[in-house]
Amino acid sequence: MKDTKAIPYKIYLEEKELPTTWYNVRADMKNKPAPLLNPGTLQPMKAEELAGVFCDELVKQELDNDTRYYPIPQEIVDFYKMYRPSPLVRAYCLEKKLGTPAKIYYKFEGNNTSGSHKLNSAIAQAYYAKQQGLKGVTTETGAGQWGTALSMACSYFGLDCKVYMVKVSYEQKPFRREVMRTYGASVVPSPSNTTNVGRAILEQFPGTTGSLGCAISEAVEVAVSNPGYRYVLGSVLNQVLLHQSVIGVETKIAMDKYGIVPDIIIGCAGGGSNLGGLIAPFMGEKLRGEKDYRFIAVEPASCPSFTRGKFAYDFCDTGKVCPMAKMYTLGSGFIPAPNHAGGLRYHGMSSILSQLYHDGYMEARSVEQTSVFKAAEEFARVEGILPAPESAHAIRAAIDEALKCKETGEEKTILFGLTGTGYFDMVAYEKFHDGLMSDYIPSDEELQKGFDGLPKVD
Amino acid sequence: MKDTKAIPYKIYLEEKELPTTWYNVRADMKNKPAPLLNPGTLQPMKAEELAGVFCDELVKQELDNDTRYYPIPQEIVDFYKMYRPSPLVRAYCLEKKLGTPAKIYYKFEGNNTSGSHKLNSAIAQAYYAKQQGLKGVTTETGAGQWGTALSMACSYFGLDCKVYMVKVSYEQKPFRREVMRTYGASVVPSPSNTTNVGRAILEQFPGTTGSLGCAISEAVEVAVSNPGYRYVLGSVLNQVLLHQSVIGVETKIAMDKYGIVPDIIIGCAGGGSNLGGLIAPFMGEKLRGEKDYRFIAVEPASCPSFTRGKFAYDFCDTGKVCPMAKMYTLGSGFIPAPNHAGGLRYHGMSSILSQLYHDGYMEARSVEQTSVFKAAEEFARVEGILPAPESAHAIRAAIDEALKCKETGEEKTILFGLTGTGYFDMVAYEKFHDGLMSDYIPSDEELQKGFDGLPKVD
Repeated sequence: MKDTKAIPYKIYLEEKELPTTWYNVRADMKNKPAPLLNPGTLQPMKAEELAGVFCDELVKQELDNDTRYYPIPQEIVDFYKMYRPSPLVRAYCLEKKLGTPAKIYYKFEGNNTSGSHKLNSAIAQAYYAKQQGLKGVTTETGAGQWGTALSMACSYFGLDCKVYMVKVSYEQKPFRREVMRTYGASVVPSPSNTTNVGRAILEQFPGTTGSLGCAISEAVEVAVSNPGYRYVLGSVLNQVLLHQSVIGVETKIAMDKYGIVPDIIIGCAGGGSNLGGLIAPFMGEKLRGEKDYRFIAVEPASCPSFTRGKFAYDFCDTGKVCPMAKMYTLGSGFIPAPNHAGGLRYHGMSSILSQLYHDGYMEARSVEQTSVFKAAEEFARVEGILPAPESAHAIRAAIDEALKCKETGEEKTILFGLTGTGYFDMVAYEKFHDGLMSDYIPSDEELQKGFDGLPKVD
Repeated sequence: MKDTKAIPYKIYLEEKELPTTWYNVRADMKNKPAPLLNPGTLQPMKAEELAGVFCDELVKQELDNDTRYYPIPQEIVDFYKMYRPSPLVRAYCLEKKLGTPAKIYYKFEGNNTSGSHKLNSAIAQAYYAKQQGLKGVTTETGAGQWGTALSMACSYFGLDCKVYMVKVSYEQKPFRREVMRTYGASVVPSPSNTTNVGRAILEQFPGTTGSLGCAISEAVEVAVSNPGYRYVLGSVLNQVLLHQSVIGVETKIAMDKYGIVPDIIIGCAGGGSNLGGLIAPFMGEKLRGEKDYRFIAVEPASCPSFTRGKFAYDFCDTGKVCPMAKMYTLGSGFIPAPNHAGGLRYHGMSSILSQLYHDGYMEARSVEQTSVFKAAEEFARVEGILPAPESAHAIRAAIDEALKCKETGEEKTILFGLTGTGYFDMVAYEKFHDGLMSDYIPSDEELQKGFDGLPKVD
């Protein structure tokens, strides 16, 4: 570890070193991600079809498989300056605790009020909505991280922001709701009386506590039926991975500055926005044959899209109102077991990451949640940061890889993405502390039910 | 604003630029803060008397009015590296929103899991306890910020940490409690059956929801009656202001690096730890006659120790078990009105700051809580950070000063301390959003009741 003295605990780039472009990994993919399909016609969605739902510039980004670099608009750069650069941290204390010869780094995206990397794309999507002269945007939120990020972004640009929040979260996470209100967003518990779909669901299931699928449907309905509004989404989409590439580009600039080359790059994977953003420029080098890296996607054993899902066209939402995407999926009807506490509960996966995984550029593994919380607690106690359960999936895998190095004596350099903080997830931590958390792995039969709901496409 | 281009949004010092010493402002005070008194004998507390309650090295620091600089032990420097430097932020967006020619800077101490500056002293106090070979420490916590900071610090050094948490907070803020448990602390709702004082109070008031005064008494009892334990405190004490000087020293290094000289330095004041830390090196220059600055302490109108209190010896705790301190105080029996939501509810004030205020080196003003939350929301919407209500007192005053500059056209440079984030204070924000927050200013008659309880000393 001869470089120990040279590498600071935290690398903060100077403002002038910050990324000025997003990197579009699709430009370097030989096999491009499959196009979104119109669920009615089963034909690729055209720009004009998507333009009713998304902002024009975001539609362009969504469909653009060719442009390698997108200059980041100055207004977004200025906003990024308020909370970026995020620190690239050398986990000296964790290394010492593990007694590993591995060098562990993490890129920490939690130092902003939304508490996660979601803000990187929220501000971009709000910016393009503002540029287009729109009045506002709609979205759904479950736990509330994405809704908070979008509220902050809309507040900055003076856009109206309507957030449909899954009712059970609205009631159980009043703090998240109040953060959004502080930023001027209107937060509606879903299902609600404000939409046709909401009213229909309430009539059919009067006592329902809501679902993400229903909240999406409500948000989309409001966007397409109100002039001057569009719908925005915080993960899965190609445009989101483009914006999130700022994480990876910034990481790479910092690593290059200190001559650090990662051997293994690890990220948690729900819809794929963080993982796709973190690995983007490194994956570009691998795709162009310039360098080799190991990439590891980590997902919950209770929602194993990569490791046990099918690579197929599927609906992106349970309400089946959105375009269909080709991806690793458990079926849009799949719902993780009720004891699942660790986030990353989306049934599908980014089309970009799905294609890269399918083509062998990336590994994936699933981990069980008690081992994830154990890693989270171990990390918090030595590194000081209380991680989000989602982020802790990456910590689990990073620790496991570092322990392998301890066995073999290899001095590998491990980089992982620490996407956010867990301040609003203490109910899950409480379960863990009280020994009330259990693991659950869905049976093949259960998964088959989800696969049975897959649409028949080609 | 010719320097606008030159100053980045955020100034992060490099690791090698970080402070290596704490600054003890007492060394430069002509009138030293009055000594702590033994409540029984009314004589100045001797080191050996304090040593039963506090660690030896901390007793030394508490009583040392002469040593100007304390080298920060390497172990503490290493811990600081995990979350420091904290950013010195140029509030470009707030300036623009206000349309002020003033230049506004804030030192943001909330980017760590405890969410505030409290960690700066917690790690120091834990370190000295470890150095002395102690098993653990005890403390009390109300809202939980200090308890969280201490839990993190104890976890890092492998010390046992017993936190007595006011019962009403323990029940209403389960998230804070779980964060402390994540760091391995044992958190006990106070009053409890684990101490004599707790049992006595429970017998007398079976339904009580506890008080900070009672929690202090329990924590002190456990510390003095268990071999290998000491009691630690997060504010008010001279030792705490010494550790917190890292805030000011770091700020000064960053400002000097960019040639920035503040005209006005503003901090919120509860027990005084943040304000005392932020202003320390600047106050030193003023005391030595080298430079002049305006210092403004901001306190809640509902708990106005500086602006309406008496400069007198008083008990530091409602249980009257701690030494007496000479300070600006509302009387140890004073309790802010139930509608008070904004923190900073301590009846007294650091002896150091009290003396400086008494000697005319510092101003103080009080602000009402609805105007504080209005400032908090305005700040959050343009600067992105959701502030703790405590910190928002300083924001209120900074905005007011910036608006004065707008009237006069003066380009003053304003620096304020943003002590922490408000993620765990959303109940107060909710009240504010729902219009349920009101202001309250205690009458002279009410304050007189507190003064009537002051001990008769000299």
